[in-house]
Amino acid sequence: MNRNNDVFETTFHVRFAETDQMGVVHHAVYAVWFEEGRSQWMRARGRDYAEFDAGGINLAVTELRIRYHRPARYGRRVTVRTCMKSVRSRGMEVSYEVVDSDSGDLLVTGNTRHVSTDRSGRVVRIPDEWVRFLSPER
Amino acid sequence: MNRNNDVFETTFHVRFAETDQMGVVHHAVYAVWFEEGRSQWMRARGRDYAEFDAGGINLAVTELRIRYHRPARYGRRVTVRTCMKSVRSRGMEVSYEVVDSDSGDLLVTGNTRHVSTDRSGRVVRIPDEWVRFLSPER
Amino acid sequence: MNRNNDVFETTFHVRFAETDQMGVVHHAVYAVWFEEGRSQWMRARGRDYAEFDAGGINLAVTELRIRYHRPARYGRRVTVRTCMKSVRSRGMEVSYEVVDSDSGDLLVTGNTRHVSTDRSGRVVRIPDEWVRFLSPER
Amino acid sequence: MNRNNDVFETTFHVRFAETDQMGVVHHAVYAVWFEEGRSQWMRARGRDYAEFDAGGINLAVTELRIRYHRPARYGRRVTVRTCMKSVRSRGMEVSYEVVDSDSGDLLVTGNTRHVSTDRSGRVVRIPDEWVRFLSPER
Repeated sequence: MNRNNDVFETTFHVRFAETDQMGVVHHAVYAVWFEEGRSQWMRARGRDYAEFDAGGINLAVTELRIRYHRPARYGRRVTVRTCMKSVRSRGMEVSYEVVDSDSGDLLVTGNTRHVSTDRSGRVVRIPDEWVRFLSPER
Repeated sequence: MNRNNDVFETTFHVRFAETDQMGVVHHAVYAVWFEEGRSQWMRARGRDYAEFDAGGINLAVTELRIRYHRPARYGRRVTVRTCMKSVRSRGMEVSYEVVDSDSGDLLVTGNTRHVSTDRSGRVVRIPDEWVRFLSPER
Repeated sequence: MNRNNDVFETTFHVRFAETDQMGVVHHAVYAVWFEEGRSQWMRARGRDYAEFDAGGINLAVTELRIRYHRPARYGRRVTVRTCMKSVRSRGMEVSYEVVDSDSGDLLVTGNTRHVSTDRSGRVVRIPDEWVRFLSPER
Repeated sequence: MNRNNDVFETTFHVRFAETDQMGVVHHAVYAVWFEEGRSQWMRARGRDYAEFDAGGINLAVTELRIRYHRPARYGRRVTVRTCMKSVRSRGMEVSYEVVDSDSGDLLVTGNTRHVSTDRSGRVVRIPDEWVRFLSPER
């Protein structure tokens, strides 16, 4: 993942409830963190996914990939680096890195693919203003 | 909680993801199990909360109480005993026990209060047919 | 809940994954937010619950009460106000308010009771230095 | 995924808490269902992952892939089909399908890769008896 302006970082503490009995963050939690990375990325650029959703359009996840390198632990802060890879008329692809905020250790990498759907689940075009908003070259 | 016909039992395995780093089920999970107890109670009586919800009415939780007696652990089966305590025109109260299915040990007790609301969150009367369906004396 | 120095506030965005199909935050999530309130309260005072846990002692939840006043929604920021009510040699009680950070609307109130246990689940005294650290009159 | 004896099926109801404000199951939940598929697969063959874990060895997830075909909804029953793809001395790969139990519609497909680690996170050999137990050709 490149470190240019297209990468947005958001940092927060691991929550106790996110751990499992292995003593580390449960592997499903990272999908929630990726989603939070997308939400904060949009806010940092001045809009909110809540608006998008209120407009009747969802960016439903069609594919998720996560590679786990090192475990995250309660008591640590983690940074999610979110990078918009591509935006098309009906979807987008986003990639992520999660690192330990203090040590810089790489914890997981991953990516999500999304398709734009209306309330009934039908694939629809992303409105032009949102395509422009989402596009990484902005 | 009385042990008459008004108590409905549902049994399932603890999920690994439900544990935390103390090695036991995280305390927030029991609220989800109570909800599953309500869902299965309705199904056992022949209807589904999904229908209720599809009708535009929610039984929103207004109060939750849980007392934790013993921890639940991964690898065990638990039984949720759900008891409808009272149904009124605009709400209901439900109580719960969670026990270890094999040892019979009492793990937690609790109760929830609910109010009937429409999609906009306004308090509304529960439709008569649902009041009859929900009533414990049925 | 009083607004003196004993009340600690922590603020964050609602996560999309925390909503349910009623379009609001699921009622079990507030228990996780309370826990995060406790974690941040400790950090604000200079220590971390992770240390406490690493010392082999847990502050297990024995009772949880939540009253739901208004729903929290995705796209909003919420503030958890955490107040240590009392600390004893083997336990403590904490109360919480969650408000919408921007409107100030009260969303939920609640409290938790805790008991100090060792790894095997036996009730033990909280080490003196931790009793002092946790005590509200500090 | 082949439909021979190596595919194990487990069926349960979607939980209300598993939905999000899109009105469908949140995409992170399927990772939890896959894990439940693995747990039930082991139980169906006569052993429990809890034993494995108690022996000090974890099958930590190193990679997760999920493709989302159709949304799962509250009120429906879903079936997770779990298939052990390969077992090696230090890891394994498992694949999954989730279908709507009544309509048979394919909802998601996915797979996980695992590595065997000790409590400290070091990669270790899976004990021989467990390799035999896990092996798909058994």
